[in-house]
Amino acid sequence: MSKTEKLAQHLEKLKINGMYRDDFYWTWDKTDDELDAIFTVADALRDLRERNISTKVFDSGLGISIFRDNSTRTRFSFASACNLLGLEVQDLDEKKSQIAHGETVRETANMVSFMADVIGIRDDMFIEEGHKYQKTFMDALDEGYEKGILEQRPTLVNLQCDVDHPTQSMADLLHVIHELGGVENLKGKKVAMTWAYSPSYGKPLSVPQGIIGLFTRFGMDVVLAHPEGYEVMPEIEEIAKKNAQASGGSYTKVNSMEEAFKDADIVYPKSWAPFKAMEKRTQLYREGDKAGIDTLEQELLAQNAQHKDWTCSEEMMKLTKDGKALYMHCLPADISGLSCAEGEVDNSVFDRYIEPLYKEASFKPYIIAAMIFLSKVKDPVAALRELEKNGEKRKGF
Amino acid sequence: MSKTEKLAQHLEKLKINGMYRDDFYWTWDKTDDELDAIFTVADALRDLRERNISTKVFDSGLGISIFRDNSTRTRFSFASACNLLGLEVQDLDEKKSQIAHGETVRETANMVSFMADVIGIRDDMFIEEGHKYQKTFMDALDEGYEKGILEQRPTLVNLQCDVDHPTQSMADLLHVIHELGGVENLKGKKVAMTWAYSPSYGKPLSVPQGIIGLFTRFGMDVVLAHPEGYEVMPEIEEIAKKNAQASGGSYTKVNSMEEAFKDADIVYPKSWAPFKAMEKRTQLYREGDKAGIDTLEQELLAQNAQHKDWTCSEEMMKLTKDGKALYMHCLPADISGLSCAEGEVDNSVFDRYIEPLYKEASFKPYIIAAMIFLSKVKDPVAALRELEKNGEKRKGF
Amino acid sequence: MSKTEKLAQHLEKLKINGMYRDDFYWTWDKTDDELDAIFTVADALRDLRERNISTKVFDSGLGISIFRDNSTRTRFSFASACNLLGLEVQDLDEKKSQIAHGETVRETANMVSFMADVIGIRDDMFIEEGHKYQKTFMDALDEGYEKGILEQRPTLVNLQCDVDHPTQSMADLLHVIHELGGVENLKGKKVAMTWAYSPSYGKPLSVPQGIIGLFTRFGMDVVLAHPEGYEVMPEIEEIAKKNAQASGGSYTKVNSMEEAFKDADIVYPKSWAPFKAMEKRTQLYREGDKAGIDTLEQELLAQNAQHKDWTCSEEMMKLTKDGKALYMHCLPADISGLSCAEGEVDNSVFDRYIEPLYKEASFKPYIIAAMIFLSKVKDPVAALRELEKNGEKRKGF
Repeated sequence: MSKTEKLAQHLEKLKINGMYRDDFYWTWDKTDDELDAIFTVADALRDLRERNISTKVFDSGLGISIFRDNSTRTRFSFASACNLLGLEVQDLDEKKSQIAHGETVRETANMVSFMADVIGIRDDMFIEEGHKYQKTFMDALDEGYEKGILEQRPTLVNLQCDVDHPTQSMADLLHVIHELGGVENLKGKKVAMTWAYSPSYGKPLSVPQGIIGLFTRFGMDVVLAHPEGYEVMPEIEEIAKKNAQASGGSYTKVNSMEEAFKDADIVYPKSWAPFKAMEKRTQLYREGDKAGIDTLEQELLAQNAQHKDWTCSEEMMKLTKDGKALYMHCLPADISGLSCAEGEVDNSVFDRYIEPLYKEASFKPYIIAAMIFLSKVKDPVAALRELEKNGEKRKGF
Repeated sequence: MSKTEKLAQHLEKLKINGMYRDDFYWTWDKTDDELDAIFTVADALRDLRERNISTKVFDSGLGISIFRDNSTRTRFSFASACNLLGLEVQDLDEKKSQIAHGETVRETANMVSFMADVIGIRDDMFIEEGHKYQKTFMDALDEGYEKGILEQRPTLVNLQCDVDHPTQSMADLLHVIHELGGVENLKGKKVAMTWAYSPSYGKPLSVPQGIIGLFTRFGMDVVLAHPEGYEVMPEIEEIAKKNAQASGGSYTKVNSMEEAFKDADIVYPKSWAPFKAMEKRTQLYREGDKAGIDTLEQELLAQNAQHKDWTCSEEMMKLTKDGKALYMHCLPADISGLSCAEGEVDNSVFDRYIEPLYKEASFKPYIIAAMIFLSKVKDPVAALRELEKNGEKRKGF
Repeated sequence: MSKTEKLAQHLEKLKINGMYRDDFYWTWDKTDDELDAIFTVADALRDLRERNISTKVFDSGLGISIFRDNSTRTRFSFASACNLLGLEVQDLDEKKSQIAHGETVRETANMVSFMADVIGIRDDMFIEEGHKYQKTFMDALDEGYEKGILEQRPTLVNLQCDVDHPTQSMADLLHVIHELGGVENLKGKKVAMTWAYSPSYGKPLSVPQGIIGLFTRFGMDVVLAHPEGYEVMPEIEEIAKKNAQASGGSYTKVNSMEEAFKDADIVYPKSWAPFKAMEKRTQLYREGDKAGIDTLEQELLAQNAQHKDWTCSEEMMKLTKDGKALYMHCLPADISGLSCAEGEVDNSVFDRYIEPLYKEASFKPYIIAAMIFLSKVKDPVAALRELEKNGEKRKGF
């Protein structure tokens, strides 16, 4: 039996009727079965592609991407996922559009969606803004579809907002599942999601929030560590706690990187900005107070600099389980002595983990493709089987 | 009988031999049958897509887009149309090219066209420049094709020039046809194409010109209204007059928005710049007189501000037929109290017409696709029938 | 017998096993048979396309382009080649990526390549940097593929580096082969690759280097001419000498445009920067010495201006064989009286050669497609035959 057939049989058992035509904002909106389905389809699409079998479920169609912040990995992952399924990417570059013209989100949303099958949006710059933009956008598409303006309702893949970064956390978790040899081996593993020093400031909170909101669902012992003042959004911590309780794992918060790293199976040291400062920044942004934003940024950089000892050094790694925890990062990392003088991680640590780090990233195109597949294909089990049976070659010769 | 088959039967009766391999500059270059063919094919392509039938007439090939001015709607419409037919869009971004290097239009035209099937150009910024650029570009392709440099002669879709905006006016008219229940119901309807105040300046004249040049062909009573000094190009007015005479409609010009709105079935209030000022601006541009251009722009803004009463208010709407004229706009509009303090239209009016406005815009991808289809497909009737018969699914599962 | 079948039979005789999965950096890395194979496949792909036969060897897949310098011709040629074979182009725009973030080339290379089949890179701005970037990039992909990060190893097409511009020189040569009626007619023909005055400065050396490194392999008498101080890289001159010796042609260098043009069959007058100045410029660039770079540029412009007599005038053309040498240029040229006051070539000369010049450029998409084809298709002879036999229409109706 092929791997894809095994995965199709597993998929058959999951309750995933709600996924068809549904958006993907946050992992905590989704049931366990739904997350399982995404991992399953991601693995199946990868298996088919590795066997040179075409996975084009679309003959034509558009995937619209909107990047309101820079991106390499996610941009190429979205483009790869669309191409894998037969969609062409059309990027909405707001600088080349008439959006500055005072156009509403409702209008833009409808105008770019007449022939769109999927929408991918990154909007992670301002707390309380990113998700709101995505929601406003997709609500407008609901309205457009109901009123017959749109012939189809494109579905959303959240490519990072201020709250969650689900394509990242799901790719991260699929990587962990593969590294540990199966989802059943996650239970009881200690995960240290810790803050780390970076010479830049204001990095989104969506990665740590995404990790604690997702990894707590698999019976893992998740520790969030950061210096005082670097709190994440309290409602996400609440989700993490509830998840841990339900899954038989745990969620704890400490103010010591050492404590978090102690005996950890997995470490995820990464810089982020304090939630409250980001709230203040959004307020200044709304008021158009650029001087205030600049002042705040200087304060944040000074505050960061007080915590240069929060770095994933060789010494810190020795504290982990057998000194060999799986090191993770969403990339790009601030690497001490390589990309900056002092940063999130020692060059020697980073370099030793290059292979798993790049593999971690390699799951993102498949996670995105699986999200699209499950939201657009009515009977995903039958579709996987038919793709395999047809066996059309991706590379013909 | 399917809708597409009915449309194919209608298409069969039209004299459209001249469309194959022909460019689309202006609607007034085209015969009534040719315009009819575009509406017919647009409706057929929409019917096929709504029934999930693939309309890919190309296995591969390129649609080249050149936007010398910002665009969202038209950019996505062109991309959607190309994708619908199996072409991939390649955008010529002049900033990333060597065009600043002193390259001639003749050279650029040939260099980007070796594998191009269609060219879409927007060049609407300067009076007497936009059309000239398109014409120079396409003449160079004629020469390139004749001399064997190009294996095929790509055809042009004018995505807006200084004279006409045919993909807009044709989409607008197809919307009106659908709203009124058929082209036969257009006769005798009053259309008010009126100037409206906007806090920005220098908007192209191609929309009002496109509307009066096209709508007058269908027996409608077209009124152009604007304050003194906001004249459009006189030669287009001449075309409108002749059209009206031939079609049994009328073309009149007034200097009162109220008069235009009175008993109108359709209103199209929209800002534009005065033709003569735009001519002066082109002259200053040619002379490289930036200071002169800035001064002119200030003068134009001041001139605009004298006509803030030219706005599509609730009061103005009450003057129309039963107070319920169809409100139209090419979007984005300057909406009073939403995108600007005072603008082209009251927020409450705009909001009440959101649904028809967005539907109006939804025709543009199909209009563009139909223009491409008719210029590239030798036997469009047979092609539509074969596409329907083959019934290949656009979305496979 | 079809042209494609004839070409397939020729291809069958060549030893080209090493091309599958191989990169294309420089023409002098390749054997005579390998270059022959590229010309042969380019001609075959062109024949198939002219007969409206689809040459899509990929059902889906990505071609990644990275342009670290402006480009029109090569950008569209790469996009056309990818489209011709069924690949979608995804451009890495470094301004929209997180690369400024301090990311290593090794990381970027892997991150954009998860689903990439081919990589096209232009990096020609700094001597000693361009090739290094390409090599570092591709070495990272070797590592990524070996470690199982990448499912496939994309192959490189060098779209211009500091050393060679192989898609240009190969297109140029295929043009010459067609103009002279066959590769067998190249022997003994005199080629003048000469420097010419341009009001801009710092043009890459990769074109003259590419020409002398390639044309010397075909028994031609290649003359490199430039004013003193405009030397090219000495190692490329060494390659040219060895090539000439092996092929029974000759390679000479002179400091007189007249001498080079005398009785020449082919002239290629084009500006470039002196190698040593470019080395100095790279040094200043590494030191971040912007003022130094500006000063150097002024010096170079002044130096250029001493050689305004190095121009392809009508008088100069009269010196060539029967006054009718084939004039070549990679375009865009600096045309005296058209794109600049004084430049590389008289307007009347350039204009007389427009047709062959544009034809010269028309080979580039096919050369790139052939490079991709031969590096990705395991049995290119069988593939060409199967494409022809299948006879799927590119344009369906």
